[in-house]
Amino acid sequence: MDLSRLAIHTQTNKPWTLAQCVDAYSRAGIRGISVWRDVLDKAGASDAAKLLRGAGMSVPALVRGGFFPAADAKSRQAAIDDNLRCLDDAAVIGAEMVVLVVGAVPGMELGEAREQVTEGIARLLDHAGAVNVKLAIEPLHPMYAADRSCINRMAEARAVCEALQNPLVGIAVDVYHVWWDPDLEAEIALAGRQKTLFAFHVCDWRVNTRNLLTDRGLMGDGCIPIRKIRSWVEATGFKGFNEVEVFSEDYWSMDQHTYLTRITDAYLSHT
Amino acid sequence: MDLSRLAIHTQTNKPWTLAQCVDAYSRAGIRGISVWRDVLDKAGASDAAKLLRGAGMSVPALVRGGFFPAADAKSRQAAIDDNLRCLDDAAVIGAEMVVLVVGAVPGMELGEAREQVTEGIARLLDHAGAVNVKLAIEPLHPMYAADRSCINRMAEARAVCEALQNPLVGIAVDVYHVWWDPDLEAEIALAGRQKTLFAFHVCDWRVNTRNLLTDRGLMGDGCIPIRKIRSWVEATGFKGFNEVEVFSEDYWSMDQHTYLTRITDAYLSHT
Repeated sequence: MDLSRLAIHTQTNKPWTLAQCVDAYSRAGIRGISVWRDVLDKAGASDAAKLLRGAGMSVPALVRGGFFPAADAKSRQAAIDDNLRCLDDAAVIGAEMVVLVVGAVPGMELGEAREQVTEGIARLLDHAGAVNVKLAIEPLHPMYAADRSCINRMAEARAVCEALQNPLVGIAVDVYHVWWDPDLEAEIALAGRQKTLFAFHVCDWRVNTRNLLTDRGLMGDGCIPIRKIRSWVEATGFKGFNEVEVFSEDYWSMDQHTYLTRITDAYLSHT
Repeated sequence: MDLSRLAIHTQTNKPWTLAQCVDAYSRAGIRGISVWRDVLDKAGASDAAKLLRGAGMSVPALVRGGFFPAADAKSRQAAIDDNLRCLDDAAVIGAEMVVLVVGAVPGMELGEAREQVTEGIARLLDHAGAVNVKLAIEPLHPMYAADRSCINRMAEARAVCEALQNPLVGIAVDVYHVWWDPDLEAEIALAGRQKTLFAFHVCDWRVNTRNLLTDRGLMGDGCIPIRKIRSWVEATGFKGFNEVEVFSEDYWSMDQHTYLTRITDAYLSHT
């Protein structure tokens, strides 16, 4: 019944405010919470910080920054400004990292978009160092390549890390996005050696996925070999949280307290 | 206005019978048709062969065989038997190849499934040689890795080709499935050198894809750099058809003659 390494993303319990999440997670013995910006903005960063500290919560991540590529310099600058604010908020709430969904522009060549991502992250490094917050590139599933992420495998996230060579830049591995990748085991091991394995997110792939965005399964609902992937991650010496991140209309429509019990059960049985 | 290399998959015009497809394509000056097994079974293979020959149609492919992996030997044998029948039907209608959607089993490790695929194709080779029909492995998008295809990149299709080393085994490149792959250009060039580039399928990826199976776009509806990918394919010396394969509830609900005009326009403008 070890929940010491369980963290939950607030978006998993989307109907709840940050205060409701903190209260319910605390009562359930869950000590980790990754905070999404929508609930943070509603609570206000300094009030959120007090709430999280008061409950003794660890905050692996503020979710999410990124969305760097754009057709014009003005839009690219706006993205940088937004990411700088995100780093500030992360520092205020004591988040270890900002998760980056790096972005993509329909019609822009993916290689060009990845160059803009590398440039964008480079422009955040001084500030990330000043506030001591890490930046975790999250490869997204190839079904999001059109408009959400031009980085769809760990290999391309690694290429950015290798280009920037900064200890604050690493990778968030989410099983939903990368479970199918034949190179996954090797890339996880390599990320371990390169000290870039910053985060591990879990959920499941429903075999009949009905929606590209909001039909994720809870661990055990689908076909992802989560325990095996976790074993690869832990073989690198990873000591971080197992972060549950589920977007699901079905689960959002449930009573969220009942759902939280399902989450902890699924975590203990299938992660 | 060159339609000489345009072929259409019958499933693109799903509301039509094979006879309706052949009639409409012929009148539109389209000389290539890839035949799906549902319309073939309804028409009967020998009647279909007469129909196709009578209209002077070229048949790049019978679609589709595959689905090799299974938990037990009996099911794997049933898949082999079905693929042998598919090869026979392909020979009867004069199809150059059978397209293989190789299959996957939820919960079966993808590497194990790929081994079963290689074994399954190996068991078809004698018969494929006897009837002189090629076998084209079609990598499917990673969003189909759970239950439709354990081969999601050209690299894994190539590995099977390299293991079997048979001139009848190659790859069908469908832009829908592989456009996001950072290794695509290199893998197409390599397939050209290895003489395994058997087919080229076109459609488009709608930027707001609403359904994983039946929301493909017509060329120009989405974000795939189709002309660029076609140029990579043709740089290898590929002289086959550009096969239009679109599954779309929206387009299936249109008048199919009006839609066929849209298809030829999209082909001429965006392929």
